Amino acid sequence: MSASVKAYDELITRLKKSALLRSCSAILEWDEQTYLPPAGAGHRADQLALMAGMFHQEATSPEIGDLLQELESASEWEADSIEQANIRESRHEYDRMTKLPRRLVEELSRVATLSHHAWVKARQENQFKDFLPWLEQMIDLKREQAAALGFHGQKAYDALLDEYEPGATSEMIEQAFSPLRNELVKLVAAIHDSGISPDVSILTRKYPVEKQREFSISAAEKIGFDFHSGRLDIAAHPFCTGIGPGDCRLTTRYDEHHFPGAFFGTLHEAGHGIYEQGLLKEYFGTPVGSSTSLGIHESQSRMWENLVGRSRSFWDCFYQSAQAQFPEALTNVTQEDFYRAINDVRPSYIRVEADEVTYNLHIMLRFELEQALIAGDLQPTDLETAWNEKFTEYFGITPDTPAHGCLQDVHWSAGLIGYFPTYALGNMYAAHFFNAANQELGGLDELISRGEFVPLKEWLNQKIHQQGKRYRANRLLEVVTGESLSHEPLVAQLSRKYSELYNL
Amino acid sequence: MSASVKAYDELITRLKKSALLRSCSAILEWDEQTYLPPAGAGHRADQLALMAGMFHQEATSPEIGDLLQELESASEWEADSIEQANIRESRHEYDRMTKLPRRLVEELSRVATLSHHAWVKARQENQFKDFLPWLEQMIDLKREQAAALGFHGQKAYDALLDEYEPGATSEMIEQAFSPLRNELVKLVAAIHDSGISPDVSILTRKYPVEKQREFSISAAEKIGFDFHSGRLDIAAHPFCTGIGPGDCRLTTRYDEHHFPGAFFGTLHEAGHGIYEQGLLKEYFGTPVGSSTSLGIHESQSRMWENLVGRSRSFWDCFYQSAQAQFPEALTNVTQEDFYRAINDVRPSYIRVEADEVTYNLHIMLRFELEQALIAGDLQPTDLETAWNEKFTEYFGITPDTPAHGCLQDVHWSAGLIGYFPTYALGNMYAAHFFNAANQELGGLDELISRGEFVPLKEWLNQKIHQQGKRYRANRLLEVVTGESLSHEPLVAQLSRKYSELYNL
Repeated sequence: MSASVKAYDELITRLKKSALLRSCSAILEWDEQTYLPPAGAGHRADQLALMAGMFHQEATSPEIGDLLQELESASEWEADSIEQANIRESRHEYDRMTKLPRRLVEELSRVATLSHHAWVKARQENQFKDFLPWLEQMIDLKREQAAALGFHGQKAYDALLDEYEPGATSEMIEQAFSPLRNELVKLVAAIHDSGISPDVSILTRKYPVEKQREFSISAAEKIGFDFHSGRLDIAAHPFCTGIGPGDCRLTTRYDEHHFPGAFFGTLHEAGHGIYEQGLLKEYFGTPVGSSTSLGIHESQSRMWENLVGRSRSFWDCFYQSAQAQFPEALTNVTQEDFYRAINDVRPSYIRVEADEVTYNLHIMLRFELEQALIAGDLQPTDLETAWNEKFTEYFGITPDTPAHGCLQDVHWSAGLIGYFPTYALGNMYAAHFFNAANQELGGLDELISRGEFVPLKEWLNQKIHQQGKRYRANRLLEVVTGESLSHEPLVAQLSRKYSELYNL
Repeated sequence: MSASVKAYDELITRLKKSALLRSCSAILEWDEQTYLPPAGAGHRADQLALMAGMFHQEATSPEIGDLLQELESASEWEADSIEQANIRESRHEYDRMTKLPRRLVEELSRVATLSHHAWVKARQENQFKDFLPWLEQMIDLKREQAAALGFHGQKAYDALLDEYEPGATSEMIEQAFSPLRNELVKLVAAIHDSGISPDVSILTRKYPVEKQREFSISAAEKIGFDFHSGRLDIAAHPFCTGIGPGDCRLTTRYDEHHFPGAFFGTLHEAGHGIYEQGLLKEYFGTPVGSSTSLGIHESQSRMWENLVGRSRSFWDCFYQSAQAQFPEALTNVTQEDFYRAINDVRPSYIRVEADEVTYNLHIMLRFELEQALIAGDLQPTDLETAWNEKFTEYFGITPDTPAHGCLQDVHWSAGLIGYFPTYALGNMYAAHFFNAANQELGGLDELISRGEFVPLKEWLNQKIHQQGKRYRANRLLEVVTGESLSHEPLVAQLSRKYSELYNL
């Protein structure tokens, strides 16, 4: 065994140990969101802080730095090999973690906790000014974080973005967002002008919670989420967490009088879950056994939720059982009316409730504003006004309260800046991937309407999930589809679908 | 601040850190028994092994040894003070953990896992000989463990017992068990000879699971388990686990056609839970913030399950709501018939299904046999015969299969030797404590029949729970009741109750 093979094995052992420790925290976090008794919150915070400290100590140990240096100076790694990818991405992660001074890490964590509480209260009371001082502190800290990470002549924002979408830059994203924005604004206007307005009241009839749960689980199972290696529980803020091999957990929330929330929420999280379950178990804890980026992750959830779940063919397969499951709500509703209701497009204030078309505009607005905040071109004190102006420009309506405007999302209060664009990236990636799968598998619509989800799932497993971090997102897109990121596939898909629905 | 106060604070900080780490494992263990997806078992084993290793490293660090030595040579600790108790019990724990060579700890853990699997299979297939080689290995390892721990002229068995009941000796236990055994054998015979046999079929009518759950939760809440700081979930092998301040979790299992299982099981676990919730939060992670011993723990669960839950006064308070909750099963059943059914006494094979009277005989049989195994007076190969002979002697019936005999319990396969006597100790302690509470509070029966459980709960909180490990079990008994351990209170209680029920 050569010295560098030995060093490589040692690196992998250390990475796996850190990841195993991290996965213990993941269970504590999952439990915090699902089953933790209210009075246990303080103890849970203590547990998580201890685990975070131990993880940080493991993951930033100087021995990892030495191993990486030794491995980088060896020349025996083939381009695009698993080894090369693991070394490249471990270096990326190690540098990100070691570049931040401990004081800054602790300060970010402390301010995020306090700021989050302040945000919850400010949103409840609809007072942007109560959140403002925390936002100001957070922006300062994030700029300090960007400076510590370094951004090599690019924008400070890019150093933050890099945490969620490694290798991406705001310039590259803006190149795709800019034409997307134009096309979407036109499409939304055309839909509005069509005068067609589906009857969405059928979605707020009575859908008993237990029936929703059964139906969501059966759909998630059918598209390929493995409940032998996973679960579905209830949480106030739905999420998916991949604990480790054989253990991936989804959450959702039920409203007896709103069908789409839990159902499409579950499909969305199951899409994330199918990705996590598709990672190669033998690489658990290493970059090649981990998801590529948040954008690619979101491409999977959005594909199952929207391109599959909100398609006509999906309901060819599922509508009969939906009627049987919810006779009170759906007996007298045609499949066509149901399909139109779940694809209603209209401007609305709240991102997480937005339809497929307007959703991306919500993201772009945030992407622009958070870039301006980090660049110093927008002062936090002016955020509410800037938000409302831009919102009116994009949507033609003006938020009536901060809770329906700049206070609606948790992200900034938690220090998640650079995170938003990954949602719209996910939509664009999904459109690319879906087209490629459609070509290679031949007639996805046909398969879906017959309830045959295995071919698509296995295609995604092989092309995307099993690659882990072997390639970065844009490179993965090229390898899988031969294409570079573009707004066109998404615009084409949306135009086709909604032209038909709204007689455009 | 004196040097030893500084050392004491440092010790406490280290103990709390270990305990916090241990409490993270406790959540992983709870999750393993409740919600873990089947395919996640392997990853969970990896997580738990990592955490156990990290805990062991923390808890056996030489710095703790140095601090203990420094603190023991200082003379400023008052007798019976919190500081003295924390130092004494940390020393006890530290010595137990550091005395065992790492090889033995790992071997015990490895053999326990394999032996447990062999036991599950052997019990299923009713083949004692398939379990025998594992039992032999386990007995050898436990004797080796006892030797490593040291037993200072006492029996090797006592070194094992000491893990569960610190400071207890088999001689002391036998002194209480011996007269208890005589009295119980007489009582069982008298009950048998009475010719009275309650109609227990009313307990196996239809009790819908969801209704059982509601009823169990409302009873657990009423006796004082705080669901704001705890939960009740389902597990195949019911248990209670105190995670930490504000977080204590009970589990039970439901059988639609067996009322007592889940109900008294929940009261039992809630009794453990009330103890855990009664520990002083500010001492979390230190001996004074931890339960005294398994025997004392069991005294709490048994008290709420039997002395309270199976009393006539308890059902004065609960029977009407039981009838309302289970109309199909109980509408035509009188409270008296119900009371008699839940207190049916008869010899049976299975310990966990045994009544209050015969239960202790099950324990004594195991206590005698496991002592003989460790002493070498009984060879594992002769266990089945010895079990059946002794069982016939005590119960007048002979187990028909090993699954109903020496293969029924998990303990020995898991290396839990010295654990069994704590169950019967718990029954004896419970009788002592209940008498004392009855005298001090005046008329517990009266309070219970009015549904007033707060006085008893608060008495236990103050006298027992808040003491933690300040005193060892026997000393605690003396401090609280002025008495030494004796079979008499338990025998008196059982005689009084069952003489009335069986016209003795």
